[in-house]
Amino acid sequence: MIINDDFLATELNKVEELLLKTLKTRSKMVEASLKRFVKSGGKRLRPTFTIIGSTFGDYKSEIVIPLATAIEIMHMATLIHDDIIDDAETRRGTKSIQATLGKNTAVYCGDFLFTRAFMIIADMAEIDMLKDISKAIAFICDSEIDQNEQKYDITVTVRDYLKRIGGKTATLFALSIASGAHKAGCDKKIINKLSNIGKSIGMAFQIVDDILDFTGNEKAVGKPLLSDARQGIYTLPIIYSLNSPYRDQTIKAIEIIDKDGGKYLLDTVLESGSLERAKGLANKYIKKALKIKDTLPEGYGKGAITEIIEKQLERKF
Amino acid sequence: MIINDDFLATELNKVEELLLKTLKTRSKMVEASLKRFVKSGGKRLRPTFTIIGSTFGDYKSEIVIPLATAIEIMHMATLIHDDIIDDAETRRGTKSIQATLGKNTAVYCGDFLFTRAFMIIADMAEIDMLKDISKAIAFICDSEIDQNEQKYDITVTVRDYLKRIGGKTATLFALSIASGAHKAGCDKKIINKLSNIGKSIGMAFQIVDDILDFTGNEKAVGKPLLSDARQGIYTLPIIYSLNSPYRDQTIKAIEIIDKDGGKYLLDTVLESGSLERAKGLANKYIKKALKIKDTLPEGYGKGAITEIIEKQLERKF
Repeated sequence: MIINDDFLATELNKVEELLLKTLKTRSKMVEASLKRFVKSGGKRLRPTFTIIGSTFGDYKSEIVIPLATAIEIMHMATLIHDDIIDDAETRRGTKSIQATLGKNTAVYCGDFLFTRAFMIIADMAEIDMLKDISKAIAFICDSEIDQNEQKYDITVTVRDYLKRIGGKTATLFALSIASGAHKAGCDKKIINKLSNIGKSIGMAFQIVDDILDFTGNEKAVGKPLLSDARQGIYTLPIIYSLNSPYRDQTIKAIEIIDKDGGKYLLDTVLESGSLERAKGLANKYIKKALKIKDTLPEGYGKGAITEIIEKQLERKF
Repeated sequence: MIINDDFLATELNKVEELLLKTLKTRSKMVEASLKRFVKSGGKRLRPTFTIIGSTFGDYKSEIVIPLATAIEIMHMATLIHDDIIDDAETRRGTKSIQATLGKNTAVYCGDFLFTRAFMIIADMAEIDMLKDISKAIAFICDSEIDQNEQKYDITVTVRDYLKRIGGKTATLFALSIASGAHKAGCDKKIINKLSNIGKSIGMAFQIVDDILDFTGNEKAVGKPLLSDARQGIYTLPIIYSLNSPYRDQTIKAIEIIDKDGGKYLLDTVLESGSLERAKGLANKYIKKALKIKDTLPEGYGKGAITEIIEKQLERKF
């Protein structure tokens, strides 16, 4: 396996091909919608991580690509179910599956993708992977249930939040990179390091995502701003604001969100410095990831991790 | 393994225990609801089939019970997602998960159960089972999507219907009994026979279920009568009625269903003899199952299959 400039693009293309191949189903309408969903992009961070993780060992494309694809399909399944729950009209800038096909079909589309992913892993005869991925998905579900139970709860703590995003985002990031390394025969020490890097990047990524719900470019984010807050999902900026001298103002801002579309809430999280604090925590996770990365052996993967962090996280602030 | 009168009850009890053990999750509320759902009963036909299938070979409780439990959990997951889609208030006579916890949590509860089932199978290190079960679930999803696309469509044919119920019900019945036999080391011929028996019983079971949506005892069925028709899901009695001289009357009856609660539709399917025709088709499937059963080797399983058919299907008419 020659690792050059085109390496990642070539491998990700293979993932893309396998993704599209896997979506074949009886209903032409469902297949077309799923294909449109795949083609609408997404950052493919998880497959990228699996590929990069595998470069730390004996890279075998024929193992990495199905694994990376299965993980991305799992992720897509959770996104489709998320959109049902969030009543989301758009996803990645295009109409969500539930908006296109209705909630009913969307539920089954998600289930269908889950089973497709399990089928890929079964075809690989990778029982250990299956266990890890099942555990990760169960953990994601647990965390989404937590998030749902914490809706409209102004007593939610930073700790609750970190536990929640750890489960719903960071776990799968960690698994993506670690499983790639594992399948390439890396030793346990490297796998652990990569897993921790994945976890930290996942935490930072989700915090940044939650910040962008306040300050992002609506078009780039692909969905209306402040959509979490409007649904009663209080993320880090709001939690910080609720735990600041601006507490009463934050509560008031939350109360009037349906009237002013969140304008006062945005002012409040800015004024209270809560967005800055959230950025600070994201940076802490990024630094942690970079620090572990420095201890990794030299090579393609090490540089690629730095690049991902720069591209996906630091530029966004 | 001693197979006596208590055998099935003992084995099903073990399934029950493993079911409850598997439902442990972070949210106490979700766990309590899932436990209530498990305890509300259900006929446990699929686990029963897996157990019976296994008695045709070298019965190993430690293999059969996890397998039977995993299949029942998959089935439960699809029921929870079905209830979301159907807006069902009740399931098995108690409040549905979506009515108790809301649709949002219900979506994740279903996903959670799916992954739990896959985890059990992964723990068993049964790659072939995993493939078969994944395929069956993907097939169920396909058929549910079909059903959804066929909603309010009065041109739906008997063939569409049979394909749909084959996918959504009979496949898992066939897999349940065949996988039990497979894991007990039965030869291919026996496994095929059992699979066909499972498939036929599954078809009959679903047709009977659809008949009971018209004529059943609301309390015994566990949900309001005519709920399928009210949602635009046209099952065999309506399809037969639409393809009879009572076609125009059936269309009219469908049109006024929201006004009269389906009274005219019930009269029409009775008057047109469509319910009787549906019963006839169910009986054909039952007879087919019994005929194959007769060619099975003598023993516990053979008698148990007859008993199930009598208990679950024939008594209901």
